[in-house]
Amino acid sequence: MKRKLMVGGGAALAAMILFATPALAQDEPSAADVQVVLDNIWILIAAVLVIFMQAGFALVEAGLTRAKSVSNIMMKNMMDFVVGVLAFAAVGFAFAFGGTGKFIGTEGFFLNPNTFEAGWLNLSLPTFFIFQVAFAATAATIVSGAMAERTKFKSYLIYSAAITAFIYPVVVHWVWGGGWLYQLSTPYHDFAGSGVVHTVGGVAAFMGALILGPRIGKYGPDGKPRAILGHSIPFAIIGCFILLIGWFGFNPGSELAADAAVPGIFVTTLLGGVTGCVVAMAVVWAKTGKPDVAMAGNGLLAGLVGITAGCGSVNNWSAVIIGAVAGVLVVFAVFAIDRLKIDDPVGAVSVHGVCGIWGVIAVGLFAREDVEGFWSQGLFFGGGTDQLVSQLIGIVAIIAWTAVTTGILFLVLKHTIGLRVSEQEELEGLDVHEHGAPGYGIDSFADSATLSTAQPVKTNA
Amino acid sequence: MKRKLMVGGGAALAAMILFATPALAQDEPSAADVQVVLDNIWILIAAVLVIFMQAGFALVEAGLTRAKSVSNIMMKNMMDFVVGVLAFAAVGFAFAFGGTGKFIGTEGFFLNPNTFEAGWLNLSLPTFFIFQVAFAATAATIVSGAMAERTKFKSYLIYSAAITAFIYPVVVHWVWGGGWLYQLSTPYHDFAGSGVVHTVGGVAAFMGALILGPRIGKYGPDGKPRAILGHSIPFAIIGCFILLIGWFGFNPGSELAADAAVPGIFVTTLLGGVTGCVVAMAVVWAKTGKPDVAMAGNGLLAGLVGITAGCGSVNNWSAVIIGAVAGVLVVFAVFAIDRLKIDDPVGAVSVHGVCGIWGVIAVGLFAREDVEGFWSQGLFFGGGTDQLVSQLIGIVAIIAWTAVTTGILFLVLKHTIGLRVSEQEELEGLDVHEHGAPGYGIDSFADSATLSTAQPVKTNA
Amino acid sequence: MKRKLMVGGGAALAAMILFATPALAQDEPSAADVQVVLDNIWILIAAVLVIFMQAGFALVEAGLTRAKSVSNIMMKNMMDFVVGVLAFAAVGFAFAFGGTGKFIGTEGFFLNPNTFEAGWLNLSLPTFFIFQVAFAATAATIVSGAMAERTKFKSYLIYSAAITAFIYPVVVHWVWGGGWLYQLSTPYHDFAGSGVVHTVGGVAAFMGALILGPRIGKYGPDGKPRAILGHSIPFAIIGCFILLIGWFGFNPGSELAADAAVPGIFVTTLLGGVTGCVVAMAVVWAKTGKPDVAMAGNGLLAGLVGITAGCGSVNNWSAVIIGAVAGVLVVFAVFAIDRLKIDDPVGAVSVHGVCGIWGVIAVGLFAREDVEGFWSQGLFFGGGTDQLVSQLIGIVAIIAWTAVTTGILFLVLKHTIGLRVSEQEELEGLDVHEHGAPGYGIDSFADSATLSTAQPVKTNA
Repeated sequence: MKRKLMVGGGAALAAMILFATPALAQDEPSAADVQVVLDNIWILIAAVLVIFMQAGFALVEAGLTRAKSVSNIMMKNMMDFVVGVLAFAAVGFAFAFGGTGKFIGTEGFFLNPNTFEAGWLNLSLPTFFIFQVAFAATAATIVSGAMAERTKFKSYLIYSAAITAFIYPVVVHWVWGGGWLYQLSTPYHDFAGSGVVHTVGGVAAFMGALILGPRIGKYGPDGKPRAILGHSIPFAIIGCFILLIGWFGFNPGSELAADAAVPGIFVTTLLGGVTGCVVAMAVVWAKTGKPDVAMAGNGLLAGLVGITAGCGSVNNWSAVIIGAVAGVLVVFAVFAIDRLKIDDPVGAVSVHGVCGIWGVIAVGLFAREDVEGFWSQGLFFGGGTDQLVSQLIGIVAIIAWTAVTTGILFLVLKHTIGLRVSEQEELEGLDVHEHGAPGYGIDSFADSATLSTAQPVKTNA
Repeated sequence: MKRKLMVGGGAALAAMILFATPALAQDEPSAADVQVVLDNIWILIAAVLVIFMQAGFALVEAGLTRAKSVSNIMMKNMMDFVVGVLAFAAVGFAFAFGGTGKFIGTEGFFLNPNTFEAGWLNLSLPTFFIFQVAFAATAATIVSGAMAERTKFKSYLIYSAAITAFIYPVVVHWVWGGGWLYQLSTPYHDFAGSGVVHTVGGVAAFMGALILGPRIGKYGPDGKPRAILGHSIPFAIIGCFILLIGWFGFNPGSELAADAAVPGIFVTTLLGGVTGCVVAMAVVWAKTGKPDVAMAGNGLLAGLVGITAGCGSVNNWSAVIIGAVAGVLVVFAVFAIDRLKIDDPVGAVSVHGVCGIWGVIAVGLFAREDVEGFWSQGLFFGGGTDQLVSQLIGIVAIIAWTAVTTGILFLVLKHTIGLRVSEQEELEGLDVHEHGAPGYGIDSFADSATLSTAQPVKTNA
Repeated sequence: MKRKLMVGGGAALAAMILFATPALAQDEPSAADVQVVLDNIWILIAAVLVIFMQAGFALVEAGLTRAKSVSNIMMKNMMDFVVGVLAFAAVGFAFAFGGTGKFIGTEGFFLNPNTFEAGWLNLSLPTFFIFQVAFAATAATIVSGAMAERTKFKSYLIYSAAITAFIYPVVVHWVWGGGWLYQLSTPYHDFAGSGVVHTVGGVAAFMGALILGPRIGKYGPDGKPRAILGHSIPFAIIGCFILLIGWFGFNPGSELAADAAVPGIFVTTLLGGVTGCVVAMAVVWAKTGKPDVAMAGNGLLAGLVGITAGCGSVNNWSAVIIGAVAGVLVVFAVFAIDRLKIDDPVGAVSVHGVCGIWGVIAVGLFAREDVEGFWSQGLFFGGGTDQLVSQLIGIVAIIAWTAVTTGILFLVLKHTIGLRVSEQEELEGLDVHEHGAPGYGIDSFADSATLSTAQPVKTNA
């Protein structure tokens, strides 16, 4: 299939005008051809929604932390994506999908197309890569919030490359790449990645926060946790809305096709998320006397994380139950982790770690085989004991792998180039010290004093 | 059609790699099959755009109100969606679409699939539900801005459930569910809901603002209105952009199919919106001497609301006229409502109420029957007197229904649990009093004083 | 094809319920029919992504400038879109695509459908218009950042109409409308508009910033540039994420069809962008000692601009190289333009102008003809000397045309109604003086003093 350089884009258009060649005369497509194109276009659009989640994570994390390190958190989120794409394209994708070894893929580095013999349903290699790389960046970015306001930027970059190049792809290979968890007699089932993506991110977040230690001032002289307020609840909630939008690419896109199962996955995803939000609000209201806004936002995310593994195999009632349990879990987890002296400024461990684990287990409790039952009214269609055992094996393996590898990584960083910024830098904010400028310009919210803010440009040149 | 648990998602993928089963060998789709899938995928994507409007509404409303209640407004917007989805899934959808009674649907509660015998064109039940529930949440969320900065959160939650469970679905049933307005000899026509969605929201907003009374300080000792400035114009305008984006799901998606009419609906929607924006800017500039930014943003929304009823049945010139009239109406309505001592902080009554009514009437003035005329150059293709009469009957009924039901609701709330917060709470902001924390953390825009902001965590546990 | 008024939308739905007419019985589509619909739907969705870029530009430009003129920059971005749509619909589209003259189109004003005989591949006129008008608005909006904080709003409106009505459409005609650059023996190739869109915007930005002169305080008494900090890095980086999302409509959508080439364009676009970001961060880090966040964001955009011309005709390795070079160029260009005493507050000239030129030239260096090579591993598949010559001819012509026309335009404005605001207005901010209210309300971030902010409404009425 030779493709002339000038075909496509504006030039093709000009050709149409000049020569009025009827487009359809060239080749009459079959219905199957059109279905292939539709599958690819839909998954690419789903991938765009997933990539948009990066903006959502950035806003949630920025909103729930302090203004003095806001540039740093934006930069970490941007770098999770940017470094993550390059690392995953170079080696991560090959580790995940390059062959059928039990533990790790070994072919297809640098997206070498000659390596991949079988297709992914109707998806072309570039389509499938775009969808998968968006997932990889998501796993990476979960961690940045938990490590906010005190992590050395250089060390964070190394972490970011390591998780997308190696730690996350190995788990993907086990589950979605034909590895040992797929090869279990009853395969571990994790439709869109409660375990593969969110638990990996949540456990890495836990290890990072644990090894870093809490922010200065997080624990009082009495040893009790103190609330360090975030600097912008509007950022945080807009971030939650964007993440919700993104999840409609994340979960239904994991069908990897445009087919009749997709609409139902939208519904279970939606029901899981909104139930998590309402329940988390109710629980924190009962517990503290106020419907806390940030906690309600985290409840939405918790419900979405919880339904992610089972969204394609549970019915609507089960989705509501899964979301409700996630909404309870996230509130208690946030308070418990606080008491454990793990300082997770945004609740990433609770949302992605704890509720990710719950989502994986829930498949064993609620999944069912017949699609007609998808819209049925009954409750509790258990996945069966075999399924539950596979889910438990899978989630234990994922937790262990991630805890060990990220633990080693963070400890090595801590004892070499250092994981944490200096006390002075932490107190004054990372923005000026790590990045050379505040996130909010000096006169940001004043309305005069133009000249006083003009500073000489610093350059080594 | 049995569907194995492991089909779909990563596992299907793994199967492809291991066994290299060609996907298309399983079943060769017909063109009609592919069209069905395409219809569903397109409407789901349109629904995602509509759901994204929630973020737009939240930003517009937050931007045009004060910082001290910003968390509250974000929370109300989130709850409109979250509570709205649950209420609409449980009963609202059944009231709207469950059978062909003149007044209200009576079947299909809790999304019971056995109830719905006929399909919706090619859309499956879950697809159609996702699109409709996004609309329901939109109707609900229009109100939050008009009632901003002084409404009790608990009462707002009850309102939010009531409108999505009952008040809005009844109107939907009349128009889109085969009820009495559809059964008129010349059916009331409201393509995407200038009346069904926006007028319902706008009238509810009017009743809410009326029964609540104005914010403290809104009217001076002389009885004249004073401008209470919003806290973030950037939020408001980004919100407008997001709403514009969302409208490209809202209006073209209301075709409920992927067909040849969709592109033209994009054009009328776009032209209506941009004309409303330019004209509102010009009118406010002439009237006050300055091109007010918030008013221009509201002009964009006004044009979009105006074109929503007729976007599928008017030509481009008519769309421009409809948008222009909406742009004039919104400015005069904002000033008039201010003088009526109805305190609507964001202009929701003017944008959604007044311009929604205009949009419905405009169908009677501009709609035409032949699709070839869609791109024609002429002006004024009247819908005919019969159509105009039906439009007037419809909009009067919608206004009356909404005013009476929401009026009763707000009055009952006012005289039971209370609709308005205390004076102290209003002056100090709802964020701390209703939700337990400020929307912008204490040190948000300072760059020191870390320790001083750390407060003991309050918990009942 | 007669289309009854009530078909489509809710009424069609009601008809389905009442009469249970099976939708497919009406007409059985062919696969080619479905492909046509799919092409149109995909391009409309791509256009929505491109329109979303307006929000991205607004956030980047607002974030990198000062709070006292934030409303003005939001308004300019909104007006670029709003005025741009009307100007392009009225005459710009006709100049671009109305006939095959060498220099300019002459038919199809006001979207007259009878004018356009040939189609655009499978796209209908409204679909094609929506996609193209989104591009036109993008070209316009690039300029607003470079002219920030000192331009008269009225003059900006005139510029905005002129570029979308005439200056940009002429360039489009040359390249995508069958004009002289397409008619070269080896046609100038610019897939999605590194030259047509970004260089036009970047050169106009340069001329605007040059003729306006620098902001007060930008250059010290020593003549050296000073950094005037932006007021919100989070805004800027969220804007970059939104622009990235939008580029997935901009570049792959320029295929103007849903076909097998689309996925690969996603990959080259992504790789170009992320490489630009990493490299710009590394270069500025080496040069100044700090990984500057705003520069990294501009590096992402620089890489995206650079890959835009070649995204459909270079392989992945070339995309990485193109992005890397763009990442280097943007940093040096920003510093160089600063030293030239051209005050471009957001770096628009460097990002869109310099990297746009680079993108056009890169096609001559890296493009290749066979699509199989798209994923190949080799480096440096030159487009050939003939291609390179055409690229150079094209970019010189585009630069000359834009510099001359926008230069005349800005000079005429300067010497008639004036291009720049008064010194007092500039020092106090454009928001209050040009638009009548600050972008951030007076009590925005205070938590009391409600009454003190209430001011009498000013109106001429």
